[in-house]
Amino acid sequence: MLQASLRVALGRLVRRGGLRVQLPDGAGWSFGDGQGPSAAFALRSPRALRRLLLNPSLAFGELYMEGEVQPVGCNIAEVLEVLVLNQHAGGDHPAEALLGPWRWARRRLDQLNPAGRARRNVAHHYDLNGRLYALFLDRDRQYSCAFFPTGQETLEEAQALKKRHIAAKLRLDRPGLEVLDIGCGWGGMALHLARDWGARVTGITLSEEQLAEARRRAAEAGLSDRVRFELMDYRAWTRPVDRIVSVGMFEHVGVGNYATFFRTLRFALKPDGVALVHAIGRAKGAGTTNPWLAKYIFPGGYSPALSEVVPAIEHAGLWITDLEILRMHYAMTIREWRRRFAANRDAIGALYDERFCRMFEFYLAGCEMTFRHGDHMNWQVQLARSPHALPLTRDWMAEAERAAPREAVPAGG
Amino acid sequence: MLQASLRVALGRLVRRGGLRVQLPDGAGWSFGDGQGPSAAFALRSPRALRRLLLNPSLAFGELYMEGEVQPVGCNIAEVLEVLVLNQHAGGDHPAEALLGPWRWARRRLDQLNPAGRARRNVAHHYDLNGRLYALFLDRDRQYSCAFFPTGQETLEEAQALKKRHIAAKLRLDRPGLEVLDIGCGWGGMALHLARDWGARVTGITLSEEQLAEARRRAAEAGLSDRVRFELMDYRAWTRPVDRIVSVGMFEHVGVGNYATFFRTLRFALKPDGVALVHAIGRAKGAGTTNPWLAKYIFPGGYSPALSEVVPAIEHAGLWITDLEILRMHYAMTIREWRRRFAANRDAIGALYDERFCRMFEFYLAGCEMTFRHGDHMNWQVQLARSPHALPLTRDWMAEAERAAPREAVPAGG
Repeated sequence: MLQASLRVALGRLVRRGGLRVQLPDGAGWSFGDGQGPSAAFALRSPRALRRLLLNPSLAFGELYMEGEVQPVGCNIAEVLEVLVLNQHAGGDHPAEALLGPWRWARRRLDQLNPAGRARRNVAHHYDLNGRLYALFLDRDRQYSCAFFPTGQETLEEAQALKKRHIAAKLRLDRPGLEVLDIGCGWGGMALHLARDWGARVTGITLSEEQLAEARRRAAEAGLSDRVRFELMDYRAWTRPVDRIVSVGMFEHVGVGNYATFFRTLRFALKPDGVALVHAIGRAKGAGTTNPWLAKYIFPGGYSPALSEVVPAIEHAGLWITDLEILRMHYAMTIREWRRRFAANRDAIGALYDERFCRMFEFYLAGCEMTFRHGDHMNWQVQLARSPHALPLTRDWMAEAERAAPREAVPAGG
Repeated sequence: MLQASLRVALGRLVRRGGLRVQLPDGAGWSFGDGQGPSAAFALRSPRALRRLLLNPSLAFGELYMEGEVQPVGCNIAEVLEVLVLNQHAGGDHPAEALLGPWRWARRRLDQLNPAGRARRNVAHHYDLNGRLYALFLDRDRQYSCAFFPTGQETLEEAQALKKRHIAAKLRLDRPGLEVLDIGCGWGGMALHLARDWGARVTGITLSEEQLAEARRRAAEAGLSDRVRFELMDYRAWTRPVDRIVSVGMFEHVGVGNYATFFRTLRFALKPDGVALVHAIGRAKGAGTTNPWLAKYIFPGGYSPALSEVVPAIEHAGLWITDLEILRMHYAMTIREWRRRFAANRDAIGALYDERFCRMFEFYLAGCEMTFRHGDHMNWQVQLARSPHALPLTRDWMAEAERAAPREAVPAGG
């Protein structure tokens, strides 16, 4: 009975590509039209089967972490590719439809993110051993979507190009402009703005691990006079600055706080100020964070639809002056993270256990496929307080990007 | 008593710049801080004073049309500059606050725009004597925001640059692509796309005057084999095409029909199709159409906030691939329309009466000032059905724009 229900559910979901499932009793099912990617996995126990049927979005990742779901002749990314492709091609799991409204109600609760919980949420992921991030990110530890103009760049190149692409949109047209970097990570963006664009930068983060590393790097680069880092919630910032940049942090703000976020930006900008926010979004309207991802990776996290972001911007009294939608760039970024993670799996296994490694593999693979075949993208919105703050056309951005000093890019890892 | 109330109301509204008001009894008031633009007008009768107090947004334009409001030592544009500047600087008229909710409710009703009313609304303005438009628009009769990269272009140049700017965003990278032009006006955009970009274009309009002129021009240009024009509501279009362009028509769609509009675009695009919509918007959130403008110029018209547009796009399943916000360009466009209107006022007065001329002056001046000092702008949103329809970066648009054949631009009117 359970087995028959799961078979019906998978048959409804998987129409494109191919998926083979090996059951605990040795039987096997095949789904899909054989056109496109194919993969296979084994379910190791009847209990796994039941858990998968009842709450697939949460259980599939957990079962993979526990070894109860085991890819056969492929890796978990290939399995997830078939599943995500089909999920966004119209197929859906019936249990998901039932759980949807409940998740919707949970969403606001999960994303309340008062300052204390925001800090705990951040610590959950970003205070992991710094050595872990060194083993799958680029050398500058850019933990956000890179920029691949040709799709052939190395990750190191693409992250350097991303920093330049963002800096070029900040109109740093004279030295000494003061920049606030909200969610500064390990400091790469702040150091780039100070070193290559002559800015004075304050980077704020909620992660003590990131703070320590960012400060160490500023000192090492001899930039401590122009870059400082603070452990601070964005809501605590009050002093107006010339420019604000926020890269890959908005995903942690929470839908209930978007108005506060942009109001903070509004009041933290001088009258001729400019801001650039870079974040993950979903193209087809509001949704809910995958429950596995919310539980194991990003508590309080959410990828907003622009229809959730734009009202908060308008309400804050900010002008949207430009919007770019980066499609596929994040899929390419994470593919490279996955490749490096796999290449360094032994070293990572020495830092953490096997379950952790499988959790991280599942996380990276699931995210990559949602960017590659689903509705996720990365948006960059440029904001200004005054309609006169920026030139009449957008050409200056591409010009600034071309004219910028090229950061020395080390060879790919 | 009435006089005292109006004085209080104007005093609350006008804080910046200077406004002098001459009363019917010869007395005079002065408002403002003297910093910035100043103007003066006379109120000719006690009745005018009462109407102005009770419903200023509607009455001020009507009183100007009737000669009951008369600028003193300046023109109506200068008077409106002071008023609009202050309206958007925080001041407001108390009667406006009371009327606001009622207008909000009226908004949806006024913008229902079923096909029959849509056609009547269009006829109201666009079926005016074609000679009128020839007397204040550029020679190509572009009746929408021009593109002034330096701010120094003539109107003829800026309108040619606008057409090229839009065409460059449509990715017309091979000849023979089929384009649907929704709201084609007098055909200028469609003819440009066929002649300079090798496209096959169908332009649709609801104005019989525009249709006849557009067809005449296509025949005259020898482009009738590649461009055709039809009297058709956008909701009647069903056949998928490669590209869709819509310039200055979305303002007439009505908020209740945005979902229908973008769903129509979605179904009228081939899987790798691209669309570009160019329209007026307001930067600071939803509002209401000025009642005078809705009554005398654009029944059923509305300038949407992006927060009203984006949800409809997402709901239709379209990807936003780029968004540009043109600030000040429309103010520069209308300033030139006003200049030409004034220069040809005698000829226009021979077509219509003095009241009509004053109505049109008021319309152009009010719109210019709302773009110059208010929250209005012009947005260009690029849409695609597939996230793979367009290149990884936006550089191709600027490249296409640079490489495009330069349309011969006649000297400014």
